[in-house]
Amino acid sequence: MARLVMKFGGTSVANIERIRNVARHVKREVDAGHEVAVVVSAMSGATNQLVAWCREAAPLHDAREYDAVVASGEQVTSGLLAIVLQEMGINARSWQGWQIPIRTDGSHGAARIADIDGSFLIERLKQGQVAVIAGFQGIAPDNRISTLGRGGSDTSAVAVAAAIQADRCDIYTDVDGVYTTDPRIVPKARRLDRVAFEEMLEMASLGAKVLQVRSVEMAMVHGVRTFVRSSFDDPDAPQTGKDGLPPGTLICDEDELVEQQVVTGIAFAKDEAQISIRNVPDKPGVAGAVFGPLADANINVDMIVQNISPDGKTTDITFTVPESEYERALKVLEDKRTELAYAGIEGARDVVKVSVIGIGMRSHAGVAAQCFRGLAEKGINIRAITTSEIKISVLIDSAYTELAVRTLHSLYGLDG
Amino acid sequence: MARLVMKFGGTSVANIERIRNVARHVKREVDAGHEVAVVVSAMSGATNQLVAWCREAAPLHDAREYDAVVASGEQVTSGLLAIVLQEMGINARSWQGWQIPIRTDGSHGAARIADIDGSFLIERLKQGQVAVIAGFQGIAPDNRISTLGRGGSDTSAVAVAAAIQADRCDIYTDVDGVYTTDPRIVPKARRLDRVAFEEMLEMASLGAKVLQVRSVEMAMVHGVRTFVRSSFDDPDAPQTGKDGLPPGTLICDEDELVEQQVVTGIAFAKDEAQISIRNVPDKPGVAGAVFGPLADANINVDMIVQNISPDGKTTDITFTVPESEYERALKVLEDKRTELAYAGIEGARDVVKVSVIGIGMRSHAGVAAQCFRGLAEKGINIRAITTSEIKISVLIDSAYTELAVRTLHSLYGLDG
Repeated sequence: MARLVMKFGGTSVANIERIRNVARHVKREVDAGHEVAVVVSAMSGATNQLVAWCREAAPLHDAREYDAVVASGEQVTSGLLAIVLQEMGINARSWQGWQIPIRTDGSHGAARIADIDGSFLIERLKQGQVAVIAGFQGIAPDNRISTLGRGGSDTSAVAVAAAIQADRCDIYTDVDGVYTTDPRIVPKARRLDRVAFEEMLEMASLGAKVLQVRSVEMAMVHGVRTFVRSSFDDPDAPQTGKDGLPPGTLICDEDELVEQQVVTGIAFAKDEAQISIRNVPDKPGVAGAVFGPLADANINVDMIVQNISPDGKTTDITFTVPESEYERALKVLEDKRTELAYAGIEGARDVVKVSVIGIGMRSHAGVAAQCFRGLAEKGINIRAITTSEIKISVLIDSAYTELAVRTLHSLYGLDG
Repeated sequence: MARLVMKFGGTSVANIERIRNVARHVKREVDAGHEVAVVVSAMSGATNQLVAWCREAAPLHDAREYDAVVASGEQVTSGLLAIVLQEMGINARSWQGWQIPIRTDGSHGAARIADIDGSFLIERLKQGQVAVIAGFQGIAPDNRISTLGRGGSDTSAVAVAAAIQADRCDIYTDVDGVYTTDPRIVPKARRLDRVAFEEMLEMASLGAKVLQVRSVEMAMVHGVRTFVRSSFDDPDAPQTGKDGLPPGTLICDEDELVEQQVVTGIAFAKDEAQISIRNVPDKPGVAGAVFGPLADANINVDMIVQNISPDGKTTDITFTVPESEYERALKVLEDKRTELAYAGIEGARDVVKVSVIGIGMRSHAGVAAQCFRGLAEKGINIRAITTSEIKISVLIDSAYTELAVRTLHSLYGLDG
């Protein structure tokens, strides 16, 4: 007997027929003797409609009212799934965020979960009642409905799993797991059976859009074993894969990784643009002077590279921004030219960031060198490099994206 | 300065453009210096869609889950109206039933309001904030969302008005008031400036479908002056009608009726069927024996007539049921023939109940006689008669509906 959280997204609950399919997945786990809490998103399209109404009502609107409007989508699906489960003879009830309660901070529209008291849910689960929880929502300190921001149902699911000490949080999604890289680019990409939280965090933020980044952070902090699987599986098929699980990827603590590989996956982020500032005076506070104005303009800066100054007087700073913000970022910096006292500014739009990710590289030397050599052999020029303990990122011309990703995928033995 | 409740139905909030129109009505009252609480229904069509989903999920569904699903419609419109009001520079916020809270009993799906603590709302109103309240919903003792049954937003509005001691509850609807009778049948029908609660109660239950019966009952009990007006009025037109109000009907205590007329209106109820049971033994319990089985079969009995027994041994009982239940009602009674020991049973489908209503008839003799004589002069046969203190109802052949209504309308001086 295990305690499970099962999370279903908007396409899985888009109409009553699909909600019935979700209910069959739930029934399978209940029949297997598990205690089950389900977290649901709104019907696909519903949230977009509600958001559109808010925007039509006023382009700049009160986030508290937006939350009241938009949270209604999950209220509907949680009630409907409870009805369908009861129809199948399963003891179930819906829970709204304010009923549990799922307490959040006061940042309406993009709230963070502060606290969930799981004791009441646990009591009901032990009585054999399935909890159907409206995802994406909570209650703020002002006693008003809050929402977690788009994609927040993943975070709800993981937070509930932590609060009720679930053995596993199953995320049913439209892909059947996390791959070594994008299978559309590398047909030999393999599904990973297991991936460490830290690796997943790098992959999620780098564009392997399986799970919301915040949900992975939360899973890591609370040690919630999170299993990504396809919602298109036949609910009644035997669950006889690895660890008694069907095909999917378990995101877990690195201690649980069975065969620890040096490199786990190759991620890439398109739609980046590079900006380089030449000969900035190399003195304390210069980085702040550059990035402060960009932050004020709400421009998200990703990769940042600053090298040791060769002459101790000036240095070059390179960074990336979303391609859509390229012109605006240049404008912001040109307006600050006198203040920043740089010699020149240049940039490039058609760049891509390719990252090699693997928790194993912490204990293996030469991983980075291997990467640079491999790319050089294919004649791919590296514009900039940044590294972390478990990641090497290179910025290259976007024309080489596929070649670079395939080369690295083979190089680190990831081809299936 | 007055304190007002303004209630808008589903067609008035069917899209953002109409919600803007509602907001202009609200702004007019705020600009006039009034404290305003608004009660809104769901967008027209929204509730039907939500109900349809519940039925598709399971024909017999948990009323608590139904409530969670269906109440979401008013959650959406309350938030959207608050956004539009804010956009117009008006301080406003939405309130869900559970936030105020509007406490109801535990009859999910058809709950009755038990208690509203208005102190918090009053505090906000005094600070100049408009309260936009989701109608039709409350919170049950189990801490779950409850709904009041279809049309319940009228009841919400009146209950809120009572709780905040509002000076008036304005019901914006698709007609511009209460008429002396149906203008489609009597072109000379006049809009009533004022009508007493008791009269309105008789009119509402008799088919003048302007206000939900329960809301009128509640208005009467709490003495809430309720003003019915058209939501199609130009919001910016000067409010220069009677009592400084625009065209409409004020439902109020009889003390407030200015020109007390003997008869206020003529109502009629089509789709009735008459059943008469002949020679039932005239002994205690016989009425119960007749109507008990009908109640068990969920058949709604309206008009009941039983005369004094001429011989002290048997009597005749006549009553009406909805025409759609006629066959079923006959069947129920025929099944009980031995038990009831009646001589015969007969009935008629094409009957109509016409009622003369007026609080003034309590102090005027001869009103009933005038009615019977008037109908007789037109050759209209009366099948049965019932009266209350403020109402005379006659059952006649439905072919004479228009003639009877027009005759009585003229007879009592109601023609405009």
